[in-house]
Amino acid sequence: MTTTIDGTRIAQRIRAQVAAKVTEATGSGRIPGLATVLVGDDPASAVYVAAKRRAIREAGMRDFHRHLPPRATHDDVAAVIDEFAADPHVSGILLQLPLPPQLDASVLIDRIPVTKDVDGLTTGSAGLLARGERGLRPCTPSGVIALLDAEGIPLLGAQVAVVGWGELVGQPLAQLLLRRGATVSVAHEHTTDLAAVTRPADIVVVATGVRGLIGPEHVSPGAVVIDVGIHRTPAGLTGDVRSAELDGIADRITPVPGGVGPMTIAMLMVNTLRAAQWGAEREPVAA
Amino acid sequence: MTTTIDGTRIAQRIRAQVAAKVTEATGSGRIPGLATVLVGDDPASAVYVAAKRRAIREAGMRDFHRHLPPRATHDDVAAVIDEFAADPHVSGILLQLPLPPQLDASVLIDRIPVTKDVDGLTTGSAGLLARGERGLRPCTPSGVIALLDAEGIPLLGAQVAVVGWGELVGQPLAQLLLRRGATVSVAHEHTTDLAAVTRPADIVVVATGVRGLIGPEHVSPGAVVIDVGIHRTPAGLTGDVRSAELDGIADRITPVPGGVGPMTIAMLMVNTLRAAQWGAEREPVAA
Repeated sequence: MTTTIDGTRIAQRIRAQVAAKVTEATGSGRIPGLATVLVGDDPASAVYVAAKRRAIREAGMRDFHRHLPPRATHDDVAAVIDEFAADPHVSGILLQLPLPPQLDASVLIDRIPVTKDVDGLTTGSAGLLARGERGLRPCTPSGVIALLDAEGIPLLGAQVAVVGWGELVGQPLAQLLLRRGATVSVAHEHTTDLAAVTRPADIVVVATGVRGLIGPEHVSPGAVVIDVGIHRTPAGLTGDVRSAELDGIADRITPVPGGVGPMTIAMLMVNTLRAAQWGAEREPVAA
Repeated sequence: MTTTIDGTRIAQRIRAQVAAKVTEATGSGRIPGLATVLVGDDPASAVYVAAKRRAIREAGMRDFHRHLPPRATHDDVAAVIDEFAADPHVSGILLQLPLPPQLDASVLIDRIPVTKDVDGLTTGSAGLLARGERGLRPCTPSGVIALLDAEGIPLLGAQVAVVGWGELVGQPLAQLLLRRGATVSVAHEHTTDLAAVTRPADIVVVATGVRGLIGPEHVSPGAVVIDVGIHRTPAGLTGDVRSAELDGIADRITPVPGGVGPMTIAMLMVNTLRAAQWGAEREPVAA
């Protein structure tokens, strides 16, 4: 019997916990706030930002937002980031990607102070993660870890295969898993024998962007399979894993949608709360 | 037949190449310089620093050095680092570890600008490595990569086991190998079945600090074995690998001493040269 992991339910529980802590923080006079910066008119980006802002407001946090035109210059975006960086009411800053082609995302992201880097994508946050120091971790890989924790799946000593070594998921996830004491194998487009990497694994996490890449030939009976992929098809959303074929083989599996997806936004809430706490420790508000 | 990889010869070749480039750089008016900072009277640290300074002078680079007393304060060490950071003749700064117990190594190392961080140990350099951006990489893992390159061992698509996930070697090495397109498995003290991780590997790199940990039960015939360990015993130096037992099994193996050891200092020379070039691009010297 393969159990479907209910990411939606786990994410809701985490968001409710965040909301409860926001209420506490509000009582002590400091309401966490997230500033979202959207540049241009990409419809998908607009949808994502709207969902994040709604979640922030639902959690009782302050919602700051700036929408810049598609032709915004580097200096325009930098000025908005700097303004939010200096604003003590803004706990976290999220620059929605992708940016229009005239802008260098890497340089602009690195303008966000690490203490407000709720997406965990700055070079500074990557360094803090690499060194195991306090910092904000990228939301999707943190969401994968939170999902495994919520399911009570032990990571210490577990053999985990991470399939896909992208900057947003695979790279930080491998490090988060190693910090938790997992034995980690990383496979990617240059891997010659993918099944040899994934078959020995207790947990297989797939974040490749290749639809239906992983099937029963890759997974040993009893493994936990986490599917980070998301693809829009005529038949609806689907992932990097051929889930139906793993029924009866995997012990537990995340669905698409309703698996990792909802966790990402829940972890953004967690990061915004953490950023607010970090900021408060750095510059205590006068009573 | 198992071939012994001659790290001493490869390191000498790299150091000669650096010396040739230093001669060129000197012609254009900018001599690379390394500043070593030694705090206290640890005899081993004094030996290491002396060896580094000798290598720097042999390569034709400038040798800056400051020796602080064992009771030096945080502010004493910080002032020296800041002075070298501001000095345009100093291309690279090396703070010799370990530091006396009253000093926080992590905070002091992070005071070194990333452009002068020839040990590659700052949080900034870790972030640049994690993001695959220009930066100085830690010397020992870079030395392992340079050794494999010098031996003509392909990394793209190779299956590599990294045994040991320490901050100085295993962590950065895993990332460097992944950037080169290797499929990487990382094992460490919490790994339950070490042989299951190492046996499928084409290349096994061992950096655990556990003397003689790896033997024939861990290595498949034809594998390349890189031993980063170094242990002082009554019978002389020895590593993390029981090399004699791998004779006839491994295709190639590094000896201890004379394997990875000499590469570390060669890569420090390479990093000092790179730091000088990086510094020159950032603030060109007037003709």
